[in-house]
Amino acid sequence: MYVIKTIAEMRRIRASLAEPLGFVPTMGYLHQGHLALVRQAKADNASVAVSIFVNPTQFAPGEDYNRYPRNLEEDLAQLEKIGVDAIFVPSKGEIYPHEFSSRVEVDKLTSRLEGACRPGHFSGVTTIVAKLFNIVQPTRAYFGQKDAQQAAVIKKMVSDLNMNLKVITLPTVREPDGLAMSSRNSYLNPRERQAALVLYQSLMLAKKLWQRGEKNAARIRNEMVRLIRKEPLAAIDYVSIADADTLDELEEIRPPALVSLAVKIDETRLIDNVILG
Amino acid sequence: MYVIKTIAEMRRIRASLAEPLGFVPTMGYLHQGHLALVRQAKADNASVAVSIFVNPTQFAPGEDYNRYPRNLEEDLAQLEKIGVDAIFVPSKGEIYPHEFSSRVEVDKLTSRLEGACRPGHFSGVTTIVAKLFNIVQPTRAYFGQKDAQQAAVIKKMVSDLNMNLKVITLPTVREPDGLAMSSRNSYLNPRERQAALVLYQSLMLAKKLWQRGEKNAARIRNEMVRLIRKEPLAAIDYVSIADADTLDELEEIRPPALVSLAVKIDETRLIDNVILG
Repeated sequence: MYVIKTIAEMRRIRASLAEPLGFVPTMGYLHQGHLALVRQAKADNASVAVSIFVNPTQFAPGEDYNRYPRNLEEDLAQLEKIGVDAIFVPSKGEIYPHEFSSRVEVDKLTSRLEGACRPGHFSGVTTIVAKLFNIVQPTRAYFGQKDAQQAAVIKKMVSDLNMNLKVITLPTVREPDGLAMSSRNSYLNPRERQAALVLYQSLMLAKKLWQRGEKNAARIRNEMVRLIRKEPLAAIDYVSIADADTLDELEEIRPPALVSLAVKIDETRLIDNVILG
Repeated sequence: MYVIKTIAEMRRIRASLAEPLGFVPTMGYLHQGHLALVRQAKADNASVAVSIFVNPTQFAPGEDYNRYPRNLEEDLAQLEKIGVDAIFVPSKGEIYPHEFSSRVEVDKLTSRLEGACRPGHFSGVTTIVAKLFNIVQPTRAYFGQKDAQQAAVIKKMVSDLNMNLKVITLPTVREPDGLAMSSRNSYLNPRERQAALVLYQSLMLAKKLWQRGEKNAARIRNEMVRLIRKEPLAAIDYVSIADADTLDELEEIRPPALVSLAVKIDETRLIDNVILG
């Protein structure tokens, strides 16, 4: 397994990797959600590359860039076990040299939900992902459905800019009690970990109401909000029921609809979602 | 010679072209400046692709998009003669489908000169060039020095976003009397064609003054402006003496310096430049 620090070396080794190449870009501190992506990449492709880079430009001012969890040694051990061919772990200076001044932007889709709450977040995401795609040149790239808007934005970028690869989204991996896997779950103390269940519970409530025939998005949202407000550690950033492709908010639910939410559990901001239909 | 209208077909034929591939993106109505790029691409590479697409998004509101000169038949004949392998001539709808909403932006470099005069111009240029690079996947891409800022912006985009190709800039090709070749020269009537010489003459004046030891940029600019103002059909958009890499305006000339200007000859806006040093 190659552990690669520079762009030049990544390009050189890329040229020796068997086609097709599967690629999983990550910020490290890998959990079972990441590993499910890597295993699928391994199953679909002749070789697999993973990047680990905590990308500063996708953190809004005041967010958790500095304390974002890191554990490279453990990450490498897990990837080695799966049989990954190449790990790209560039430094900040390698990715953003002095006088760096370019951006990839996806408009519209990025104005809502996470984009509205986290100024500059998606500009940082699309720019780093475009760079990584250009460096790694994968045949297929894998993203988790937990970051539903991110996956939609990246698919839109790839389609609009004619990037020569396929974006594959895989289902959210959850803890046994339903909490979506996230590197940020490591911030939670036991009391907060319990409180964090309210995200999944509210999504399950939405699903149940819809399955029972409720089509009115406002009524479902209200029930979700009511449930979350019962949890004293929870503070809602947004609760959204939107068209799964355009992310336009819906009044009446037409499947596939994306039910998504961002909730702060004390200091820790968590997101989750389900698709209806 | 393949003449290709769709992205899917371009990708398919690209896969059959010999490596390395040289690429010349154009807006058509080809002149000797374009053909010099194509010939160099032919000399440097095993195969050559040219695109012809009058890109609407790089024209600012009120500019000459609708009357931009077109002559596909003549263009194809000239490219066939040189021995180009593939011509990509997509429609507007093929390049910008419904709901297209992504952009590639280069900041700073684009804020000055052409960027200041033509709002949105470089956003249109970088976005279409990124798309064409992703579709055509060239080894080398060729641009003319006449559009000096464009070449600098594209080099910056390629470097910042780690695009896997080399950008090559070739010298401006001129008419015997010095006028830089440009598709827009076709707008000029005989009286305007004569007046348009003032761009080249003012650049030669700048070069002469510098060669004689003048280092003060303001003094050289003033002499250029004075010369251009003698021509009654000419109206100055800008006259700039800038660092050739950063495009920062200079007070004292440190080579390499880019002397560039945009001048309207009646209704026709022309640009030109020389490098000092």
